[in-house]
Amino acid sequence: MSAPSSEKIVTASLVIIGNEILSGRTRDANLGFLAAELGKLGVRMMECRVIPDIEQKIMDTVNELRKQYDYVFTTGGIGPTHDDITADSIARAFGVGISEHPEAIDRMTRYYGDPAQFTPARRRMARIPHGASLVDNPISIAPGFQIENVFVFAGIPRIVEGMFHSMQHRLIGGTPLQVRTIRTNIVEGIVAEPLGDLQKRYADIDIGSYPGFRQGRPSVSLVMRGTDGRRLDACRDELVSILGALGGEAEEFVQ
Amino acid sequence: MSAPSSEKIVTASLVIIGNEILSGRTRDANLGFLAAELGKLGVRMMECRVIPDIEQKIMDTVNELRKQYDYVFTTGGIGPTHDDITADSIARAFGVGISEHPEAIDRMTRYYGDPAQFTPARRRMARIPHGASLVDNPISIAPGFQIENVFVFAGIPRIVEGMFHSMQHRLIGGTPLQVRTIRTNIVEGIVAEPLGDLQKRYADIDIGSYPGFRQGRPSVSLVMRGTDGRRLDACRDELVSILGALGGEAEEFVQ
Repeated sequence: MSAPSSEKIVTASLVIIGNEILSGRTRDANLGFLAAELGKLGVRMMECRVIPDIEQKIMDTVNELRKQYDYVFTTGGIGPTHDDITADSIARAFGVGISEHPEAIDRMTRYYGDPAQFTPARRRMARIPHGASLVDNPISIAPGFQIENVFVFAGIPRIVEGMFHSMQHRLIGGTPLQVRTIRTNIVEGIVAEPLGDLQKRYADIDIGSYPGFRQGRPSVSLVMRGTDGRRLDACRDELVSILGALGGEAEEFVQ
Repeated sequence: MSAPSSEKIVTASLVIIGNEILSGRTRDANLGFLAAELGKLGVRMMECRVIPDIEQKIMDTVNELRKQYDYVFTTGGIGPTHDDITADSIARAFGVGISEHPEAIDRMTRYYGDPAQFTPARRRMARIPHGASLVDNPISIAPGFQIENVFVFAGIPRIVEGMFHSMQHRLIGGTPLQVRTIRTNIVEGIVAEPLGDLQKRYADIDIGSYPGFRQGRPSVSLVMRGTDGRRLDACRDELVSILGALGGEAEEFVQ
């Protein structure tokens, strides 16, 4: 057991497997969802990779990341068609066999009812690497799985959400990051210097500056992240004073 | 010069630098744009990585990818604030110095007019690694840059688009991929087997199956990619026959 005041950092990474994301055909929605949900549990998304449906690439990427991060999630490539090669690639990455999982077969047999509907292609989705445990799929039944610290999910966002909520109790989180966000009309080129000074005085807080447009006007979101709520509040209050002294707006944005 | 019939594969990867994408706060829009534009030039997006604003991570990632792919693009982290560390990290990755680039200073001096507006923070954006050439920024002037096969862009999508169009003539493309897309109401579990057979007969074509929903109904997009238009047409025609034999719809989707 660690002392109550010590900070525990737990990390995650995501591997998005799919030519359709890389080609620009489909825009990923899973990174944002997983990052936000993991953040609530005190797990920090540290890296995301988008890779093609190529077995060697999947193996190498997963084997590299599972050593570097506490958790690895993958999305995509566990459907019934020939281009769904994720489960086999993960089995090879771990050097284990793969075969039909009795519990997965059971669930899918019940779900499809009519045996003619439980086609050989659909049976492929019950193939699970040896030693893995199932991750429930409340939407379309065919399960994902967990092998060691790697969680293998489908690609469709609605199914990813269902799978995540069905397995999130398995994750051991760390100290959650808290966030304070101030939006201002003071542009980056003007606020940059006092902001850099503020960052030096609050080295325990990660201050990010994100320019953009709101209702057609330039707008900057200044985001402070840290684990100590009182320090964050103090940092935010100083930032509001800085923006006021520059004659600018400072609107707190609460998510 | 290669023979006209030979196929030349040119590859690219993208490094998205930014805590705001990893935290789920902002959804990336640059991968889709760059993948589609590069595709038109015969350059294939093979991998994308989203990484935090950490110098060592930026250095390691860029140094790994620039050896693996013909081109590397980075987005994000070249603004005026303290968290914009991309240019310095790229200089370190290449082992070169970094200092104010006279042409960049010139452009920005003219753009800001009033010297008081050309703040020290904004001058930081004129710092360019030694040996790099500028990439024009038609939106907000502060340039990106190219060093060897690495192109360093801003993060804001409108600026990424402007920078890409200003430098795309520098890229040497390969044989462009052509695409045929058929949408059907036949679900994956039913079409999977004949589709797998079709893939075996057309090994030179990459056939992908992407399930989803259209107007509330399950819908599958079957996407064929290859470099030979006549082979693609033949493959598409066979696929339409397969779907017809299964009693399904087959609507060609032209982008």
